[in-house]
Amino acid sequence: MTKKTMIKVGIVGGTGYTGVELLRLLAQHPQVQVQTVTSRTKVGTQVADLFPNLRGHFDLTFTEPTPENFTDCELIFFATPNGTAMQSVPSLLKTGKKIIDLSADFRLKEVAIWEQWYGMEHTCPHLLEEAVYGLPEINRAKIAKARLVANPGCYPTAVQLGFLPLLEAGIIDPQHLIADAKSGVSGAGRKANVATLMAEAGENFKAYNVSRHRHWPEICQGLNAYTEKPVNLTFVPHLVPMIRGIEATLYANTMRNINLEEIQTLFTQRYQNEPFVDVLPAQSHPETRNVRGANMCQLAIHRPHNTIVILSVIDNLVKGAAGQAIQNMNIMCGLPETSGLTGAALLP
Amino acid sequence: MTKKTMIKVGIVGGTGYTGVELLRLLAQHPQVQVQTVTSRTKVGTQVADLFPNLRGHFDLTFTEPTPENFTDCELIFFATPNGTAMQSVPSLLKTGKKIIDLSADFRLKEVAIWEQWYGMEHTCPHLLEEAVYGLPEINRAKIAKARLVANPGCYPTAVQLGFLPLLEAGIIDPQHLIADAKSGVSGAGRKANVATLMAEAGENFKAYNVSRHRHWPEICQGLNAYTEKPVNLTFVPHLVPMIRGIEATLYANTMRNINLEEIQTLFTQRYQNEPFVDVLPAQSHPETRNVRGANMCQLAIHRPHNTIVILSVIDNLVKGAAGQAIQNMNIMCGLPETSGLTGAALLP
Amino acid sequence: MTKKTMIKVGIVGGTGYTGVELLRLLAQHPQVQVQTVTSRTKVGTQVADLFPNLRGHFDLTFTEPTPENFTDCELIFFATPNGTAMQSVPSLLKTGKKIIDLSADFRLKEVAIWEQWYGMEHTCPHLLEEAVYGLPEINRAKIAKARLVANPGCYPTAVQLGFLPLLEAGIIDPQHLIADAKSGVSGAGRKANVATLMAEAGENFKAYNVSRHRHWPEICQGLNAYTEKPVNLTFVPHLVPMIRGIEATLYANTMRNINLEEIQTLFTQRYQNEPFVDVLPAQSHPETRNVRGANMCQLAIHRPHNTIVILSVIDNLVKGAAGQAIQNMNIMCGLPETSGLTGAALLP
Amino acid sequence: MTKKTMIKVGIVGGTGYTGVELLRLLAQHPQVQVQTVTSRTKVGTQVADLFPNLRGHFDLTFTEPTPENFTDCELIFFATPNGTAMQSVPSLLKTGKKIIDLSADFRLKEVAIWEQWYGMEHTCPHLLEEAVYGLPEINRAKIAKARLVANPGCYPTAVQLGFLPLLEAGIIDPQHLIADAKSGVSGAGRKANVATLMAEAGENFKAYNVSRHRHWPEICQGLNAYTEKPVNLTFVPHLVPMIRGIEATLYANTMRNINLEEIQTLFTQRYQNEPFVDVLPAQSHPETRNVRGANMCQLAIHRPHNTIVILSVIDNLVKGAAGQAIQNMNIMCGLPETSGLTGAALLP
Repeated sequence: MTKKTMIKVGIVGGTGYTGVELLRLLAQHPQVQVQTVTSRTKVGTQVADLFPNLRGHFDLTFTEPTPENFTDCELIFFATPNGTAMQSVPSLLKTGKKIIDLSADFRLKEVAIWEQWYGMEHTCPHLLEEAVYGLPEINRAKIAKARLVANPGCYPTAVQLGFLPLLEAGIIDPQHLIADAKSGVSGAGRKANVATLMAEAGENFKAYNVSRHRHWPEICQGLNAYTEKPVNLTFVPHLVPMIRGIEATLYANTMRNINLEEIQTLFTQRYQNEPFVDVLPAQSHPETRNVRGANMCQLAIHRPHNTIVILSVIDNLVKGAAGQAIQNMNIMCGLPETSGLTGAALLP
Repeated sequence: MTKKTMIKVGIVGGTGYTGVELLRLLAQHPQVQVQTVTSRTKVGTQVADLFPNLRGHFDLTFTEPTPENFTDCELIFFATPNGTAMQSVPSLLKTGKKIIDLSADFRLKEVAIWEQWYGMEHTCPHLLEEAVYGLPEINRAKIAKARLVANPGCYPTAVQLGFLPLLEAGIIDPQHLIADAKSGVSGAGRKANVATLMAEAGENFKAYNVSRHRHWPEICQGLNAYTEKPVNLTFVPHLVPMIRGIEATLYANTMRNINLEEIQTLFTQRYQNEPFVDVLPAQSHPETRNVRGANMCQLAIHRPHNTIVILSVIDNLVKGAAGQAIQNMNIMCGLPETSGLTGAALLP
Repeated sequence: MTKKTMIKVGIVGGTGYTGVELLRLLAQHPQVQVQTVTSRTKVGTQVADLFPNLRGHFDLTFTEPTPENFTDCELIFFATPNGTAMQSVPSLLKTGKKIIDLSADFRLKEVAIWEQWYGMEHTCPHLLEEAVYGLPEINRAKIAKARLVANPGCYPTAVQLGFLPLLEAGIIDPQHLIADAKSGVSGAGRKANVATLMAEAGENFKAYNVSRHRHWPEICQGLNAYTEKPVNLTFVPHLVPMIRGIEATLYANTMRNINLEEIQTLFTQRYQNEPFVDVLPAQSHPETRNVRGANMCQLAIHRPHNTIVILSVIDNLVKGAAGQAIQNMNIMCGLPETSGLTGAALLP
Repeated sequence: MTKKTMIKVGIVGGTGYTGVELLRLLAQHPQVQVQTVTSRTKVGTQVADLFPNLRGHFDLTFTEPTPENFTDCELIFFATPNGTAMQSVPSLLKTGKKIIDLSADFRLKEVAIWEQWYGMEHTCPHLLEEAVYGLPEINRAKIAKARLVANPGCYPTAVQLGFLPLLEAGIIDPQHLIADAKSGVSGAGRKANVATLMAEAGENFKAYNVSRHRHWPEICQGLNAYTEKPVNLTFVPHLVPMIRGIEATLYANTMRNINLEEIQTLFTQRYQNEPFVDVLPAQSHPETRNVRGANMCQLAIHRPHNTIVILSVIDNLVKGAAGQAIQNMNIMCGLPETSGLTGAALLP
């Protein structure tokens, strides 16, 4: 292989599911080297001791998230709980680092709304405007020039990619949008918690946080960019007894005459150059396993009884988190957008 | 225990999941004795050899479904594939048997619609009018006098019980009903099939048959009884990687001013005397495991952003099949409606 | 129903899985009334709010575990973490209560061994001798007269019932016993814990605590009662991605000529009067679901290549915990041993 | 990328789980191009229509398995049911193709034993001697020169890699070997079958085919190469409610004094140059998810109470099938052995 410059990156908060998924994907990335992985609670532990799937792939130890540990890093991923990245990002930006925050700290533009939904004071509201919302399918050019990218939430990725072409084309009534979304349990993170014990979440299905989910304002903000009046979205998340995967079933009413073929064409054209959005033939039924472990959103369009029904599936940890973050990194660093993200999904 | 007359019943087609669930529940029924269980393919096999959970509960062998095997039976359950019950029901009715058909043969009133959706000729269309749709919460009096009860489908039970109070009260717009329903894999039955192998359906989630599901006309027929114009229902079923349970998330728009408290009161009053419909406090999130193995529908009402959201859970094999059939049997035979159906759900 | 005296019982620590399972089973018990359920952390909470499967079955609130709350109780179940029961049992015994401890506090006879394995000082070692080990299949007569019963662990129940007839008959070499045991995740209890999150334990299988599991000394103590020299047992527990169920595959070498039929007869005769041990035909393969929710141990005997292989399945929460506790209660209180325990297992 | 010669390969029988896994892995292989995939039942179907995880990775249609469809192929994988490969392999070998058979047709050396266990006549017994058993860790040199490789079974891979160092070193008594093995349901293949429906195999655990499993003679044949007298192996397979993964817990008795450290060293040295066998630190507990999707066997050694306990995990579809086949292909074709097999396992 011809010699090429390796980009060095760091990961803050590498002990959760988005952390281990970043590491799994970056292990295959031909132009990136992970220099530093931090964890306050696991300082000194070998990464591969915590995550034995990474044995032989990394010879790295968790360190403290001190600035000097990132000296050589061109870009830093934050895979931390909400409220952590905003503490360190301002100073890291000053040292010239590029930042991709996988938490929610920089996703909302209005600080008041952020503080209302996240229940804490934002410590660097001035960065909210600068931060670019990292959905490449709408913000690719801005991401390419960004210092700070707010990586989208998992539900918001699946829902926005499904509604986007319809809103852009002005076909549907933004006052009556419904997103019935379902997620595997890894979305709740790797933290001790009774509700996501296997004995609680296994062999069970439930809706939760009906329209009180923090991803609701994020989705609304994204969709509002394409409508005159703010959208009225009903968003109901559900917990599925599986580990990975999000399926969102989206319902909308058309505002003018349009048939299924035209809608199908609209989607196909909208995403024809997108490497990570795959529009299936009309009336397909995408399954979450089709994209397990892969940075891909599969969409299918139905139109029973005049309602438009969009089915959207992603892997919440990949296109819904770590994979999309690497896609953003590729764009920010001038690498081929698909670099390190070409693996096929694991089926079965 | 004081001596009481035991009612003798028979089961046609006892090798599927509704069959074994009928047997499990009837094993606890204090006033019913299972006399006959038939299966063309398992003649001579001990019931407890096929279903080892029934060891010690039944000393019964599968027999041929010949009339003489039902001589002593007052009532016969059909737990057969669609198209089977209609072959035998007319002659059995003539011998004075009461019939509860758990298949779809007698659920639809219009033969043309039935034949369109089930893809075969109906052999006794004259019985469609007589057959009583066995949803006790709307048809109790008719069921009590019926010779032939069509036991409702699983999705239709969950969806109708959720929409019913709203349509009866004329609160919602019947032209924009959405039922986003999710079912465990036992709904597909106990038959060799690639799509419901664990390696296909496990760790996976998908929508299927978007508004082309046979339960759609059944639900519409049921709901239409409460509206002037036919309802316009969008029904999207999904397959959940679990064995038992249905959750239906129902969306409707109000046609007049009404607040959440009023809707909650409406539901509470509508179902206050129903032993098997349990209205949870407003804004609860019912889980399918709450009713696993139990003949119960749990409902909860939400109202985010002016959309009414009803959450409805049942065990598809119990309130969605065998349990409801026994409830109907109790009503038809003059037994206490809850007899044999008082077990608490298995959690976890 | 003829009037009969209801026995009043209490449950200390009712918020875990053995607690909710005791409540589920006692809800069906015709001669028992649950008077009190305690939980220090949930005082004032309705039992049915924590466990919605119990809605309509209990109108009880969690209370403090103070003596006066048990005044009317004839018998008290401890469903508490290890180390709790021993604090209160001595004083409760003095007030004449019968006690069944589902934790490990009174299972081992030798205080030194107990303290070594449980890592704390035993506060009432004088009761260890009095306490009766509550495996009815070996200790029925003692249990009937006991004030204090130590309910066996889940693995020990499955393993002992499998080895017992062979050791009693002196057929196998006690120096080479192997128990390869597998348990569902509910065995780890209902407590916040990363290792039993669904995202950790789902779609995964592993051995754990190879012969360092606390059930090892308990099993050895039980088996040693039937051998001259202490047994040498290798015990390897495994975690299965399911909620309920234990399967133990037991390996032993014969010390004298005996064929499979003779071993089968030995088991059949040993357990012929036991209501909750079911010896399957030789060479059967019992499944954990055969006993899901039921107080039953199913056993099957194989003999490939001169090794005796015993397969033993139980529901860890029923015959391995709450069901066996109720069986012990029935024996202690002079009720029919099967009272309240006749439900068939939930399959599928 | 510098130009390199791509090796063209074909797959006979590409519609099962080993077929789709071969395709998933080969999609990442830098030096291999899949030319042909056959399926008698799916002729004309796009591969990516049957397996949507492969969308964008292959533009291939299933074809008939006629010789001309393999004209350009240097090597052909058979991912067919037992009994199929032996029909075509002789003629394909004559045309100079290299063959890797993932079925059992060429695994056993003695035709009489093969015919006894597989219940059919072998059509080319003369090839049994030539065929090389494709376990690279013992047969690397032979594989490099082979025309026909019999890819090992999944259980045999996990069990042999665990016992091998101990037998080679003459440490354990070959007369008392026990392999208690557990497999996910994908091991049963992608065929319509009641026993592996999710409603049957989910939330359930059982032993099956106690020492009557076809992998028993294969394991014995492999182990016998390292012992003077034939081994006496008790092999008990179990079905785990998960999709992928095998865990084998192996028990053996030492024949001479040796401590845990020496055994650990023995394993470490035996496998130090093996890219796909990973010996964990002593007393580790390998989990099947550590190797999900990866061509890796993780081993750990314990020694409680004088019994040696080896824990061995693989992904049954990768190191137990398709991955090992590609490893063999790399060896046979002179490619780097790890080519295309460097992906990290998917965790969680």
